Amino acid sequence: MTVTEYIMVRLQELGVDHVFGVPGDFNLSLLEQVTTAGEFTFVGCCNELNASYAADGYARVRGMSALVTTYGVGELSALAGVAGAYAEKVPIVCINGTPPLRAVENGALIHHTMADGNYSNMLNCYRNFTVAQALLTPANAGEEIDRVLLACVSKSRPVYLQIPSDVAGAEIGRRPQSLNLDTVGDAAATALAVETITERLNRAHKPAILVDADIGRFKLLEMALSLAERRGLPIAYLIPAKGLIPESHPNVIGIYRGAASSPDVLDAVEGADCLICIGARFTDVATGLFSQNLRKQNLIDVQSDHVAGDNFFFDNIRVAQVLERITEAGETSIRRFNRVDHALPPHRSTYADSASVNQDSFWQLIQTFLKPGDIIVSDTGTAFFACSQLDFPEQTNFLGQPIWSALGYGVPACLGACCAAPSRRVLLFVGDGGLQMSVQELSTLFRLGLKPIIFLLNNDGYTIERLIYGAGSVYNDLQPWDYPLLPRVFSPSGGCAVKTVRTNNEVHEALNSTAGNDTLQFIEVILPRLDAAQPLSRFLQRVAEFNFSDAGVEA
Amino acid sequence: MTVTEYIMVRLQELGVDHVFGVPGDFNLSLLEQVTTAGEFTFVGCCNELNASYAADGYARVRGMSALVTTYGVGELSALAGVAGAYAEKVPIVCINGTPPLRAVENGALIHHTMADGNYSNMLNCYRNFTVAQALLTPANAGEEIDRVLLACVSKSRPVYLQIPSDVAGAEIGRRPQSLNLDTVGDAAATALAVETITERLNRAHKPAILVDADIGRFKLLEMALSLAERRGLPIAYLIPAKGLIPESHPNVIGIYRGAASSPDVLDAVEGADCLICIGARFTDVATGLFSQNLRKQNLIDVQSDHVAGDNFFFDNIRVAQVLERITEAGETSIRRFNRVDHALPPHRSTYADSASVNQDSFWQLIQTFLKPGDIIVSDTGTAFFACSQLDFPEQTNFLGQPIWSALGYGVPACLGACCAAPSRRVLLFVGDGGLQMSVQELSTLFRLGLKPIIFLLNNDGYTIERLIYGAGSVYNDLQPWDYPLLPRVFSPSGGCAVKTVRTNNEVHEALNSTAGNDTLQFIEVILPRLDAAQPLSRFLQRVAEFNFSDAGVEA
Repeated sequence: MTVTEYIMVRLQELGVDHVFGVPGDFNLSLLEQVTTAGEFTFVGCCNELNASYAADGYARVRGMSALVTTYGVGELSALAGVAGAYAEKVPIVCINGTPPLRAVENGALIHHTMADGNYSNMLNCYRNFTVAQALLTPANAGEEIDRVLLACVSKSRPVYLQIPSDVAGAEIGRRPQSLNLDTVGDAAATALAVETITERLNRAHKPAILVDADIGRFKLLEMALSLAERRGLPIAYLIPAKGLIPESHPNVIGIYRGAASSPDVLDAVEGADCLICIGARFTDVATGLFSQNLRKQNLIDVQSDHVAGDNFFFDNIRVAQVLERITEAGETSIRRFNRVDHALPPHRSTYADSASVNQDSFWQLIQTFLKPGDIIVSDTGTAFFACSQLDFPEQTNFLGQPIWSALGYGVPACLGACCAAPSRRVLLFVGDGGLQMSVQELSTLFRLGLKPIIFLLNNDGYTIERLIYGAGSVYNDLQPWDYPLLPRVFSPSGGCAVKTVRTNNEVHEALNSTAGNDTLQFIEVILPRLDAAQPLSRFLQRVAEFNFSDAGVEA
Repeated sequence: MTVTEYIMVRLQELGVDHVFGVPGDFNLSLLEQVTTAGEFTFVGCCNELNASYAADGYARVRGMSALVTTYGVGELSALAGVAGAYAEKVPIVCINGTPPLRAVENGALIHHTMADGNYSNMLNCYRNFTVAQALLTPANAGEEIDRVLLACVSKSRPVYLQIPSDVAGAEIGRRPQSLNLDTVGDAAATALAVETITERLNRAHKPAILVDADIGRFKLLEMALSLAERRGLPIAYLIPAKGLIPESHPNVIGIYRGAASSPDVLDAVEGADCLICIGARFTDVATGLFSQNLRKQNLIDVQSDHVAGDNFFFDNIRVAQVLERITEAGETSIRRFNRVDHALPPHRSTYADSASVNQDSFWQLIQTFLKPGDIIVSDTGTAFFACSQLDFPEQTNFLGQPIWSALGYGVPACLGACCAAPSRRVLLFVGDGGLQMSVQELSTLFRLGLKPIIFLLNNDGYTIERLIYGAGSVYNDLQPWDYPLLPRVFSPSGGCAVKTVRTNNEVHEALNSTAGNDTLQFIEVILPRLDAAQPLSRFLQRVAEFNFSDAGVEA
């Protein structure tokens, strides 16, 4: 068994059967093995940044992904996407083909390096955005691959494997046993955490739960829902948990956004005398720029590996077990909550069919278009914020970047989602700015015969930036493209339904026609230049003050 | 005067009047000042990696460039291009808009970060690929900007300025004096270096000069030519100096490529009993994979800041002064050398006009097409190697990446070159793989009304990789695009002459027609899938052995 074969066995065990990446001279033998093995689809992307976003999208649906790059030029091009996955806690196995081991060890002056003998600079970069790293040799490969992959699983963040070109095909002196994925933790700390939280909960008059994306990343949803059901607690969630939590569950009350929350959510969260926060990160975007008003002594901060609160800190705990035992220790007290409206009042108005479509009417139409089981992918920008205000049907996945917020994420992430779940409907919402960043990955969707429905929200420039600063400034302008021509470039043989819509009626008709089309669908929606939902505009004004004014919002 | 205005004054002093980049919420106030100042053209690129390549291309023509990104997402996307500039010694001033200073200092949980309060990770990455860095505050800005820019000039490599969003517009308590660009050096070390080298040169029976790209980067060409003329020395050069040295100068004998050099160059370089190497880096690509046979005791290694040889090392020298004084100290001995053929025998055959164009005939046709003053830009791949075999007319600039060798460099670098020298003819040679990586930057060429002649060498996949490994393997395939349709996407209003050529005759006609077209010209050249010059194919076989075989070439 070769080093590459060992990795492939492990990836399959972890549910990965696609490998994203770009070929380069130091990874060719590895790719040869991957593509001839039969169990994997290699998704060759147009560039490495796109490949990293695609891997991110795949991992959010499948639970993990693999990304292959070549040394230096390839891996650094992917770094921004890997950093995004770190920020958003998405587990990607980054596999980098390096020059041959003897060249690395001798500091040979090879292309794709700084030509100064330094082979630690790439690792220096990746160390900031991955939770485990290894340079593989035939001697260490088995052990190191397992160590690194276990970190990827247990921390739900990217890891980094350097595989020298001559090691990829080297024999490994070991056949893998099954990976032992049981989280090891400190039993005593876990027991103390359970005792402490139970005591606090029992003492509380108005407890509540606030969850973040970790609910999905660490598979804690079931435990959190059981806890809420058994103890009769309301569950609010931060924006990154959107799409990871069943919105129609009777205990789920809505999104907490600091001062911008709806009154009921605000009361439940800020008025709680015991708030169990699961994986919560109170970021600028999640809190309407730090407008939360939470009393520290009421918080119990449950993270994937520790629990902290007023006067206690238990490290190295088993978080799933903590949640289960708190639940068991509680008295049954079934309560149901009225689901409150979304935190940001929708401000939805009636609209005329023949009128030009705008952000308000468009998203109302999209709301009625959603179906259970959809995967919704949104690039950064107005679309992301609008999506976070939609009511998601059951089993909706939502892919977006509330923390990293990279423009250009959408198209490649959509590719990853389509690969991860080829039988599900995938909707992509992407602005013109985001599309221009990573447009070539449309090509890979066609190449693989994938069929998402793509909504290009063409509002003639970087609208989200115009709303922060420089509404009419040239740097926020974009070259106007003939977007509907793009599918013909990337798929000369056809296989695409293309429409441009300008009125509500045309949007409506375009949506109706999607069901009959068994092709990729590309719908360009012409939207007003400075249009955005009211709450978003207000938030962006606060961002402008925060960023550029001396008297701005306090950090 | 604001911090941004201070930077603009400095950039102008250094010959920079374009700023490349992408807007993002933390750099908007900075861009507002840059775009309203009147002295600068802001070139908004489609994504940051492309912007970094464009800045690289501009700096290679103008001597320096500026790149503006936003925190995290933007700067990390540009990192691969900046690393390439570091490897190739191209001075780019990387200006990064960070969150406001108080947010950085407080470790606020802002989007575009890891949301963990860490604000050192981006700097950690940039530190590997820049020669000076600073986080600007209103108090330190003047001093730090000058320190960092001087390092950029003196080391001819990228530098990194972090400007918090609220600092970009802050008043600076200082008006700049002119930058003092005089290289400070150790006078004693410089004198000793001169003495030592002169003594060695005087003793030598068969001295020679071997130059690398530093000849251009540190403006040493004139000194090197004077030295050669006065002392009667032959000058050979390594591939990265291609386009930086006048090939028809009587002392310039040709390219040294290790064992693959032509016999006369091999004899002059390897047979020299005193070889003055100026900035030489004996990389894999420059030496035909380390096939050089140079006796260490005969080498004098002149680098930009030190001189080293058998038993001596002088640090912190003034290299230009060293070269001047050696020249002065020498006896006049005018000798002329017969310029020898290019190191790689051209293997040029006759071809029929009506025959399909191939790599051999195409480059013969291009050879006759070149004019003095052309700027030739080549992406990585077969085109780069072919260009390095052309005879360049006087005043040719050649932009390519012999060391970093990033695919996708071509189109954006061409953009940078066009901005740097709008009145010169710019030719771009790019393969289909390279074009797919960064295709959207064609849009920016149209947006600015720039008019390069673009040759798309369409050989249906990653040919240079096919020739290394996996000639018929799927991972080296690309989705076939309708490339001639691209200009219509990016420039719906026209302004482009588009052709597809398949025969020598068609190439010939296309070349003839260029003179009459005052537009961007996009010529798709259909080439055979596995075609490359014989010497390149042989080199790539050696690369395959080096990378993938246990018994491969020694590093």
